[in-house]
Amino acid sequence: MAKNPRKLIVIGGSAAGPKAASKARRLDQEAEITIIQKDHDLSMASCGYPYYIGGVFQDRTQLLGPGGGVVRDTMYYRNAKDITTKVDTEATTIDREAKTVTCKNLVTNDVEILAYDKLVLATGSVPTIPNIPGKDLKGVTALKSMEDVDFLRKVAEEKGIKQAVVIGGGLIGIETCEALSLSGVKVTIVELLSQILTFLDWQLAKILENYVRSKGVDVITNNGIARFLGSNGVVTGVGLSDGTELPCELAVVAVGVKPNVDLARRAGLEIGKTGGIIADPYMQTSDPHIYAVGDCTEQQHLITGHQIHAPLGDLANLEGRVAGENAILGNRATFSGTILSGVCKVFDQAAGSTGLSESKARELGFDVTSVVIAGLDKPGYMNGQFLISKMVVENKSQKIVGFQCIGPGDVSKQVAQAAMAIQGKMTVNDLTHLDLPYAPPFTLAIDNFIACSHVVENKIKGRMKGVSAEEVKRRVDAKDDMYVLDVRGPDEFEAMRLGIGETLIPLGMLRKRIGELPADKNREIITYCKISLRAYEAQLILESHGWTNVKIMEGGVMAWPYPREK
Amino acid sequence: MAKNPRKLIVIGGSAAGPKAASKARRLDQEAEITIIQKDHDLSMASCGYPYYIGGVFQDRTQLLGPGGGVVRDTMYYRNAKDITTKVDTEATTIDREAKTVTCKNLVTNDVEILAYDKLVLATGSVPTIPNIPGKDLKGVTALKSMEDVDFLRKVAEEKGIKQAVVIGGGLIGIETCEALSLSGVKVTIVELLSQILTFLDWQLAKILENYVRSKGVDVITNNGIARFLGSNGVVTGVGLSDGTELPCELAVVAVGVKPNVDLARRAGLEIGKTGGIIADPYMQTSDPHIYAVGDCTEQQHLITGHQIHAPLGDLANLEGRVAGENAILGNRATFSGTILSGVCKVFDQAAGSTGLSESKARELGFDVTSVVIAGLDKPGYMNGQFLISKMVVENKSQKIVGFQCIGPGDVSKQVAQAAMAIQGKMTVNDLTHLDLPYAPPFTLAIDNFIACSHVVENKIKGRMKGVSAEEVKRRVDAKDDMYVLDVRGPDEFEAMRLGIGETLIPLGMLRKRIGELPADKNREIITYCKISLRAYEAQLILESHGWTNVKIMEGGVMAWPYPREK
Repeated sequence: MAKNPRKLIVIGGSAAGPKAASKARRLDQEAEITIIQKDHDLSMASCGYPYYIGGVFQDRTQLLGPGGGVVRDTMYYRNAKDITTKVDTEATTIDREAKTVTCKNLVTNDVEILAYDKLVLATGSVPTIPNIPGKDLKGVTALKSMEDVDFLRKVAEEKGIKQAVVIGGGLIGIETCEALSLSGVKVTIVELLSQILTFLDWQLAKILENYVRSKGVDVITNNGIARFLGSNGVVTGVGLSDGTELPCELAVVAVGVKPNVDLARRAGLEIGKTGGIIADPYMQTSDPHIYAVGDCTEQQHLITGHQIHAPLGDLANLEGRVAGENAILGNRATFSGTILSGVCKVFDQAAGSTGLSESKARELGFDVTSVVIAGLDKPGYMNGQFLISKMVVENKSQKIVGFQCIGPGDVSKQVAQAAMAIQGKMTVNDLTHLDLPYAPPFTLAIDNFIACSHVVENKIKGRMKGVSAEEVKRRVDAKDDMYVLDVRGPDEFEAMRLGIGETLIPLGMLRKRIGELPADKNREIITYCKISLRAYEAQLILESHGWTNVKIMEGGVMAWPYPREK
Repeated sequence: MAKNPRKLIVIGGSAAGPKAASKARRLDQEAEITIIQKDHDLSMASCGYPYYIGGVFQDRTQLLGPGGGVVRDTMYYRNAKDITTKVDTEATTIDREAKTVTCKNLVTNDVEILAYDKLVLATGSVPTIPNIPGKDLKGVTALKSMEDVDFLRKVAEEKGIKQAVVIGGGLIGIETCEALSLSGVKVTIVELLSQILTFLDWQLAKILENYVRSKGVDVITNNGIARFLGSNGVVTGVGLSDGTELPCELAVVAVGVKPNVDLARRAGLEIGKTGGIIADPYMQTSDPHIYAVGDCTEQQHLITGHQIHAPLGDLANLEGRVAGENAILGNRATFSGTILSGVCKVFDQAAGSTGLSESKARELGFDVTSVVIAGLDKPGYMNGQFLISKMVVENKSQKIVGFQCIGPGDVSKQVAQAAMAIQGKMTVNDLTHLDLPYAPPFTLAIDNFIACSHVVENKIKGRMKGVSAEEVKRRVDAKDDMYVLDVRGPDEFEAMRLGIGETLIPLGMLRKRIGELPADKNREIITYCKISLRAYEAQLILESHGWTNVKIMEGGVMAWPYPREK
């Protein structure tokens, strides 16, 4: 053991920083470990903020004790971890030559210079606030700090506010929208792009948008925010790019975050194109004595190989663990990168994704086959709930490169399975005979994820000829000449139908009523059912009777994102 | 297309058979496809039986329409699938030379000889009923047929029965026990082996057994059944091997199933050592015109390479799909085998496993490292529930070869992730930085499965010195000289404690109170906390102060399977 203990400084005390410090402590009981934290609090469970605001739980200290029960304050770190924490303290300069950090106590204004052997930067991210008129009005806020949390929780509790606008339909936007809605606020989401939750492809995002609307939320897409309107210094509305004005008493900006790299930049560390600090798989920066972890860094996307900014709490923790080990033992642990796995609760449904969406894959030049399926997460008799899933497969390698899933069913398990499949470099064929744990209270005999691979396999082999709901809608709107065939039962047709000029012939009658189909065997036929499983059988029957151009609409009625006749 | 359509006969109409027939139909609209089914019903969802008996759902027909809603009877197969079904019909002989099947209608006694080009055997399994006195008494039943289901449902509904004995503590035994208990019957489980649910290692099985007892169920292990006691032809009790007599009005035998291969054996097909029909990865038997799928076959265990009998509904479906394709297109699809993934609801908890248990792995000569951890499935503030998990890793390859999990938390997702990891041939290092979908409503920032890999990694690297609760109990009982240290808080100690001679020093006090530890630095110290995360930090602190023999009890108080002082 060295006579002079190693000095480790960690800048940032939310997720990645404390993780790095704790891991370092476990590997070296003698090191002098210090966390410098600009905020007053430590170890904030920032992913939990929306649920505290929404009243899912009442005890604010639960946001500060993610380990369960014990608030992780200075005393905790001192006693349990022998780690010094300096809160309300800003690291203002790094002198890489002298290996020192200058920091200033924001309460006392005391300045201190601390020496380090190794430094870990975990400076996190800052919310993007558009530089537009009115951004400093009272009632305009982000959801980033505990102050924001306290403000929004108060809003939710006091029930004095009737209308709010959430700017940005991403993860934080949707979660904030839910929290406010649950406390009775009428929420409008404004999203610049053509859809909410851009990790999904448009179709699935639209289905979820329809669901969000059904919960009383307004969603405005393809529209940006031009200015905040106010009176007496208080927000009274937002003005959109197209001139629309939405009255509101609260505007939450959730258009994304950017890496907080001012300190790193001033210290001359290399910053990537994404704006994040460049760190190698050891989480080491361009200075071998400095590591960077969490939201302030960029990560490698494991499928594309590109550097991206992935400000996700789970990655922050994993990166912190790696940097903590390497800072003490020398570079040996690695964090290889991300496939951007994520999941999000949306009222009583969920949305999740891992790997690439189809649109992203195509944008990047991947040659892929994708399929949308609808189905239950477990048997109907066990109160199974619907899932709408999309699998994206690279044609050349036959490997799964993306999966997304929405619905009231067990989305998180589906996405987790897919994330494992991508990281296990599995092919479609591997997935077709997966051995997954089966019991009716939890899953179907053929799990939705396996079923998805079966459909992709059938599509790749040319057996199933799928077409997307978007394509069908375009064709219907263009009044293309095609025969649309719904093969569900009359009762199902009565209860719910698309109204796109379809003819109803239930699958069980199809062979008998085959004479009713178009005489022209080359006429295009588009068929579907509730989830397009029966439609697949219909396609095969029609083909065996000589029709040459039969396609099924993937996902059936359940995955139709447009208004229905009924 | 051939002038004379191909003739496919499928013997067996429950899971694998209809799957094979349906897949064959989708690939060949011209084939003559016939299912011969001894029972009256078709497509029975046998894994759902316990939930219908237990009243989870009320509509019996839901057991016969696993596709959702529509009863899959002869008419359904005729109209929707163009498949002929012969129910109440037994296939009595296969003439492999003539390629015919003789079958007898069990209602009319009519005999018919059917020709085939390809034959699929899906004859399922039969329950093992011990050949002991009283086995034909009224009230002695298995849970295998719809008749058994109707009988047990009636028992549950009429509430006339007070006491039941379930013989066998496996999946079916536990599920039946729950179903009967929920309808107010006092149940005793009798298990020949030393534990219930033998896919688990003893410790986890014992913790679950304690939970089952807390639900009012008696569990008797290490005891067999010698005879059924009766009066007037009706069961009145069971006599156990050790002479105990248990009064009961119902005895459910659930000691396992064996492959139903009488027909295959008479036809001269090769039968494996497991008693199941030998089928290759194409699901083809020793006769190239005959395939075999589901419970009547044996499967390859993908980790051991051994042939085993794995009567699991999900595998039956996957095998059926493969045989259906190969019977029509020639051998191209494969089913590679099983890793024995399974999950089971146990009242409000669950138990699941995939791959090898530690005991099985050691029995087979694998050199493995295993670890038990306890933790939450999601954050405490989101009402996270406990999981107790065990990961088994092969030392040489560093690959995960087994994982098991119990508790009220989301067991099925944990086991599914592990099943994917095993099938993706992932190493411990791969698992330590997995990118899984994270959000507080669904999982922890570091998911339980990843945390498990972190602990295994620490153990393999010699950082964490783990010892099992079983080992600690043996040592305590042997009055070994060791210092047992509980590092939880005083409030936790007050609420619940083991009482095995432990000393309480909360982790946060450990450095200050280090003088209270044994003076002999070579004295063995065993430390634990609630889940043994703090205990790990305690181990490291003590080692840094010179103690040389410090171990932590894996899983802590939560994974202690023995009675506690408090």
